[in-house]
Amino acid sequence: MPDSVSDLGEFGLIGAMTERLPQGPGVLLGPGDDSAVVAAPDSRVVVTTDLLVENRHFRRDWSAAADVGHKAAAQNLADIEAMGARPTALTVGLGTPLDLPASWALELAEGLREECAPLGVSVVGGDVVRSDLVIVAVTALGDLGGAEPVTRAGAQPGDVVAVCGRLGWAEAGHQVLSRGFRTPRVVVEAHRRPQIPYGAGVEASRLGATSMCDVSDGLLGDLGHIAAASGVRIDIDPAALDVAGPLREVASALGADPLAWVLTGGDDNALAATFPPDVELPERWNVIGSVAAKGDGDGDGVTVAGEPYDGNAGHDHFAG
Amino acid sequence: MPDSVSDLGEFGLIGAMTERLPQGPGVLLGPGDDSAVVAAPDSRVVVTTDLLVENRHFRRDWSAAADVGHKAAAQNLADIEAMGARPTALTVGLGTPLDLPASWALELAEGLREECAPLGVSVVGGDVVRSDLVIVAVTALGDLGGAEPVTRAGAQPGDVVAVCGRLGWAEAGHQVLSRGFRTPRVVVEAHRRPQIPYGAGVEASRLGATSMCDVSDGLLGDLGHIAAASGVRIDIDPAALDVAGPLREVASALGADPLAWVLTGGDDNALAATFPPDVELPERWNVIGSVAAKGDGDGDGVTVAGEPYDGNAGHDHFAG
Repeated sequence: MPDSVSDLGEFGLIGAMTERLPQGPGVLLGPGDDSAVVAAPDSRVVVTTDLLVENRHFRRDWSAAADVGHKAAAQNLADIEAMGARPTALTVGLGTPLDLPASWALELAEGLREECAPLGVSVVGGDVVRSDLVIVAVTALGDLGGAEPVTRAGAQPGDVVAVCGRLGWAEAGHQVLSRGFRTPRVVVEAHRRPQIPYGAGVEASRLGATSMCDVSDGLLGDLGHIAAASGVRIDIDPAALDVAGPLREVASALGADPLAWVLTGGDDNALAATFPPDVELPERWNVIGSVAAKGDGDGDGVTVAGEPYDGNAGHDHFAG
Repeated sequence: MPDSVSDLGEFGLIGAMTERLPQGPGVLLGPGDDSAVVAAPDSRVVVTTDLLVENRHFRRDWSAAADVGHKAAAQNLADIEAMGARPTALTVGLGTPLDLPASWALELAEGLREECAPLGVSVVGGDVVRSDLVIVAVTALGDLGGAEPVTRAGAQPGDVVAVCGRLGWAEAGHQVLSRGFRTPRVVVEAHRRPQIPYGAGVEASRLGATSMCDVSDGLLGDLGHIAAASGVRIDIDPAALDVAGPLREVASALGADPLAWVLTGGDDNALAATFPPDVELPERWNVIGSVAAKGDGDGDGVTVAGEPYDGNAGHDHFAG
């Protein structure tokens, strides 16, 4: 095994990564040509992209390469799910320092594959370039299977608001890691590898979801996007939120408020959706609030138990 | 106008860039949601991605922001053309320092639009993150319109090799800029904004091209990819290559060999293709060589006037 990506060379690295990324049946032409060709049976393609930069979105001393691969894939796949679509393929652009251990790049590929393979999603192509920090640029494609996309703009007064997936776990893990700890493992792992409720996006679409998004900026911030796009007000019932045991324990040890993590923590990539009030939701969907008509002076459109939340409502990635 | 992207804020920047990127008719859902939705009438989607990193792929003192937008779009659109497909949409991930002038980001968006709009291509979504250097991560989508993709693997002994577009111009411009000059303007502009022969990819497919690629690593390097993928040998007739006047002038002034730039210079994104010998090619395609069966000891598969070329045959982007 060569020590660094520089020892492998550009084409050696591409070849070794590609070997670790088998192609599924929806791939009509995989890596190695100018472009890939992927089946789009719906005759529409869903597309989303995210850029992950070392020391901003991940740290190599906090996350293993496979973790970064899992996370980079997962957060893009969640954006496909959030439209009510089925993810089909990824492309990955990798920026790498010349002295990056070759094993790091290959484990990144393995993490990508492990996140994608159970879903039948393939990494169909990419690019490898030199850069001073590690950069992972992922684009995900998806298929709507004949359904209409579920946007952020369809929430109606009277709808219920429901969430599927974890909230606050990744933030708890981030808080732990920020203080130099490595446990509790369950929250640290949640920071490293978000647990996406795969299939819940298509499920929500079939159940008649009127709007949906994934929670990457924090619940209040992302519901704020739905409220703004739909021209409605959303109220969250804090008693309905699941503040899990590990979050309470970590918050207690750190003297923090676990509810704040649930309301504003990003990076768990849960799905949040609105449904007509008579919907019957499967158990993994948790009703946490309701949609009302927007009145004058309703602020940013999201309240908690009827009041504006007095914490930081979401992430501006340009903030300090 | 705010001075920096930091003054605009993340969502302000996204909004201001999006305003500059109008959506064409093939866009079913544009920017602003978790994902975009793009028409894929062929029921297959062609996809390619490239990562551009400041000081590696462009320099802000050599290229204006609009130039970088043109180039980032063009080199991805060329990869779609090289499959015999019609480009339909782009996504763009932008990594930006907080102190990047807001005008730079907005002019980048305008460069992207100017390159895309004449083709009916829309920038349908993206991501904005903080990074120490400017990063532009582009993914392009395309549609095959019922045709089979033209890969690198179909060249046959007896085929002719033809090129459409410029060769060596961007490298001449790079050589000029590297020495601190800004003229001749025509080659400097070729470095800043490659001139893609749009439509030539679909044209080649209709003319029966047996293999195709875009010339991004240098003619010898990229034809080497075709030779390897097709299991053939390719011979280039150097007398057939167009060594344009400006290249001769610059090379003469710098004491360099302009033919070397034509054979090994990257970044013009010409299209190179092989065709059956009886093909009648439109004027913009220039026949420059021929395909033969691969014998033993044929090296990397590409020769010039029957001999191995003794210069550097292409770019390894990890090389110094």
